[in-house]
Amino acid sequence: MRILVAQINPTIADVAGNCARIIQAIQRGRQQGVDLVLLPELALSGYPPEDFLLLPHFMASVEEHLQKIAQAAEGIAAIVGLPRYNPNRLEKSLYNSAALIHDQKIVDFADKILLPTYDVFDERRYFEPGEQVKIWDFKGHKLGVTICEDLWQHSGFLQSTYYRRDPVLEMKGEKPTCVLNLSASPYSFGRFQTRFKVFSHVAHSLDCPVIICNQVGGNDSLIFDGYSFYLNPQGLQQYAKGFVEEDLWIDLNQKKEPLHPESHVLQDLYQALVLGIRDYFKKLGFKKACLGLSGGIDSAVVACLAVDALGPQNVLAVAMPSRYSSSESSRDAEKLANKLGILYREMPIEKPFESYLTLLQPAFEGKEPDITEENLQARIRGMLLMALSNKLGYIVLSTGNKSEMAMGYSTLYGDMCGGLSVLGDITKQQVYALAHYINRREEVIPHHTIQRPPSAELRPDQKDSDSLPDYAIVDQVLQAYVEEHEAPEQIAEKLHLDLKLVQDLIKRIHANEYKRRQAPPSLRVSEKAFSVGRRFPIVQRWI
Amino acid sequence: MRILVAQINPTIADVAGNCARIIQAIQRGRQQGVDLVLLPELALSGYPPEDFLLLPHFMASVEEHLQKIAQAAEGIAAIVGLPRYNPNRLEKSLYNSAALIHDQKIVDFADKILLPTYDVFDERRYFEPGEQVKIWDFKGHKLGVTICEDLWQHSGFLQSTYYRRDPVLEMKGEKPTCVLNLSASPYSFGRFQTRFKVFSHVAHSLDCPVIICNQVGGNDSLIFDGYSFYLNPQGLQQYAKGFVEEDLWIDLNQKKEPLHPESHVLQDLYQALVLGIRDYFKKLGFKKACLGLSGGIDSAVVACLAVDALGPQNVLAVAMPSRYSSSESSRDAEKLANKLGILYREMPIEKPFESYLTLLQPAFEGKEPDITEENLQARIRGMLLMALSNKLGYIVLSTGNKSEMAMGYSTLYGDMCGGLSVLGDITKQQVYALAHYINRREEVIPHHTIQRPPSAELRPDQKDSDSLPDYAIVDQVLQAYVEEHEAPEQIAEKLHLDLKLVQDLIKRIHANEYKRRQAPPSLRVSEKAFSVGRRFPIVQRWI
Repeated sequence: MRILVAQINPTIADVAGNCARIIQAIQRGRQQGVDLVLLPELALSGYPPEDFLLLPHFMASVEEHLQKIAQAAEGIAAIVGLPRYNPNRLEKSLYNSAALIHDQKIVDFADKILLPTYDVFDERRYFEPGEQVKIWDFKGHKLGVTICEDLWQHSGFLQSTYYRRDPVLEMKGEKPTCVLNLSASPYSFGRFQTRFKVFSHVAHSLDCPVIICNQVGGNDSLIFDGYSFYLNPQGLQQYAKGFVEEDLWIDLNQKKEPLHPESHVLQDLYQALVLGIRDYFKKLGFKKACLGLSGGIDSAVVACLAVDALGPQNVLAVAMPSRYSSSESSRDAEKLANKLGILYREMPIEKPFESYLTLLQPAFEGKEPDITEENLQARIRGMLLMALSNKLGYIVLSTGNKSEMAMGYSTLYGDMCGGLSVLGDITKQQVYALAHYINRREEVIPHHTIQRPPSAELRPDQKDSDSLPDYAIVDQVLQAYVEEHEAPEQIAEKLHLDLKLVQDLIKRIHANEYKRRQAPPSLRVSEKAFSVGRRFPIVQRWI
Repeated sequence: MRILVAQINPTIADVAGNCARIIQAIQRGRQQGVDLVLLPELALSGYPPEDFLLLPHFMASVEEHLQKIAQAAEGIAAIVGLPRYNPNRLEKSLYNSAALIHDQKIVDFADKILLPTYDVFDERRYFEPGEQVKIWDFKGHKLGVTICEDLWQHSGFLQSTYYRRDPVLEMKGEKPTCVLNLSASPYSFGRFQTRFKVFSHVAHSLDCPVIICNQVGGNDSLIFDGYSFYLNPQGLQQYAKGFVEEDLWIDLNQKKEPLHPESHVLQDLYQALVLGIRDYFKKLGFKKACLGLSGGIDSAVVACLAVDALGPQNVLAVAMPSRYSSSESSRDAEKLANKLGILYREMPIEKPFESYLTLLQPAFEGKEPDITEENLQARIRGMLLMALSNKLGYIVLSTGNKSEMAMGYSTLYGDMCGGLSVLGDITKQQVYALAHYINRREEVIPHHTIQRPPSAELRPDQKDSDSLPDYAIVDQVLQAYVEEHEAPEQIAEKLHLDLKLVQDLIKRIHANEYKRRQAPPSLRVSEKAFSVGRRFPIVQRWI
């Protein structure tokens, strides 16, 4: 049995385009004489299609294109992920399904049984769980056809839900000779290693090979890493590259020595962000990005990622010094821009800043300077970038990181302006790690940018540490509270911190929900990103 | 049997505060000698508590406060909505539950069986469906204890989900003598009438009285209207006021002539918005609002609503004329501000506008004026309002309506700035209806404001109709596409419109998703509000 695992990059709701990609994969498979082409979960709609699933004319288009795919599968088999109507229409009207196609006929459907409804997943909003595990008798093989989460309950790795059913156990009696899995499993830090463990467990339990075809590509905040693979109880046999479309050609009769892929978690993180930027632009039909380059580490890292994603000719960096900016900042910014070969502009913001202060002076009579004047500067910068965006067709990249977004150390309508927040799910510690990764071969980001203490430079001699504890502490509390849901008392004890300090930091996290609600989408790379997978009200009285 | 229906206004996650409110209600009931106090769904946590439900220390606090409530129920019974752990922890770890308390003992729990997971509801993210309908034998009565959606399947009014189970039918064999329903049923236009029909149906089917206790109050975007009521198969017996906390005192032995409440759909809409604003401010601990008063109808309506919600002394209106503003606009704005008795400031934006144009001139060399210059003006205004907010403690109210938000006829970081979007779910047609409602007794909003054609006044002689069809058409397409999920072809045929026009409008709806994603929360009053109940990706390729 020879199988092509087609790790494709669908675009959400591009039914015609995704159909063409699927048919191309089937044709490549036929040219190479494989028996079966395996595609990702919801390949025809793209994952996640969200409320497009509720539009009857969208579903009609999916059904129509499924027929085209079947037509194209002459003399070959294909398994294609797509939403389909639940014929009895009880509870939710759809299944998250896989069409089993052989020689131009739709032989059967396998419906996803375990429907993740936690974190970034909302599958119970649309789908009804499948009734039974499908074993496809195909060319002397018994192929267990499963979709993503179906194989996860068995491992015990899921923390959010303890499903009643375990499709792996349900398959056991039927003795499948190979398990296939269509996935749209989003990247998060170190995810490949977890996925590998989960699927190894399945291969051992069922004593047969497991093949996963995972979607690749960025869709809004979610980044799918691909890394489709083929393993058997002896170990990993083959795997596709991460973060690119790739064909993985598998011959089930050939046995190889198990592979031991090296772990490149930082490289993966970097590539995930590059892919997230690239696909956001490409799938929206944009080419060019602009960003404010402050001389600080966050914007420096974003500039490097943008250059990798879009090419230096498509990136504009703008330095917008104020009366409080140090000369070193502009020098570092310009140095980096030259190194990267990107367009660079300087626009000092003193004039508009003065004009606002004059205009506001009567209303502010008798009040001391405070955060207001700081925010004005950040907002003037945001406005200038947006003006360049409007006039010249750039998408603005916002450069704030997750630690700042947690603490509200960012200006709404200021540095939070943009179409995409590149580092919104990257802690300050990870920003440093990325900077060192970028500089691993040579100094790209100026050493001075990395070494200076973080400062927004919005008032004389300002440092982030004036109003925040060290970011190492912020990031630990963030991890414990946001990702691990620990209580303030637990956190204080575990980290040996003052309870009051921990409570203050947690209060800041909740109090700044209103800002994050208006942030651009940020690329998700953690197990618990703000906004997309974490849903808290603005109005609340908890802490 | 005498029952107090305590229509309270909980704050999300204010477990201690909500507990105190519940205990006060129990004490009022005891003073009046009633047998039972009925409270709303999830009264102890507030509805919707969202991801607070995932915090173990939050759930521990809920459990602890339930004990306090039980302690307070000396010699009286109470039914209190709250989340509780699902003892077997299979699938989701919580139930959406009602604690049945009698004379300081927690007698039993009734768990919600039908869990809405559509539109604004995400209950399957947290909750497991209850196993069985609970009939409480209490003082010779058989009380069917149900939670919100449990009674909705029976009516056939639900369009999103067709549940497998119907708790009303399941109760039928047990012949309840009265059905109680704890609700957190959000307001939408005309909702009371629907709710009345649904529950009448239940009363007829079971041939017994039905009593609903519905939460009141605003929580972020959702507004709960209250309107708790008591009906029997003969008709409506009693109901609580809408949009305020109220006690409804019921004696099941007394039979009255059925009531026929008048329908006040426009008054309800107005009151819903006022409550939405008032609670957003009060629950966040803010008092004062500011807004840009343009002389147009949207900001005029928002100013009136804000005055009703917060008092005239707490509202600041700012006129920010540009070189393109007509003198009539400022005159109308000032006239309204005087009529309402609110603070009024004028801040002409010419100076900052000029300073931006000068600063951007090198980058814009050779380019014609376009939307960029229009957005600059809107953004200067947004910045000025935000500066007043920062310095003086106002929350900015944004004034764009749903039709504009659909079309992208609004400036991100400009007129979209604010803590709360008051009209974000109100179509342009409804804005006019509200203006006439406000003027029903006397001219509050100047006639000229209502009669002039809509214009953003961002370039010479601009009218909204330059780039948009009439709002009556926009609103009809919006209704058909966004609320009814109809295909462009269907819409064009139904409304006798050119297909190309319909497609263009739908394209605009999708293309402006990125703006709406960064909008402040808007008060939901329709069956399908943007953002909160409608989830579409930014990156997509459908139309």
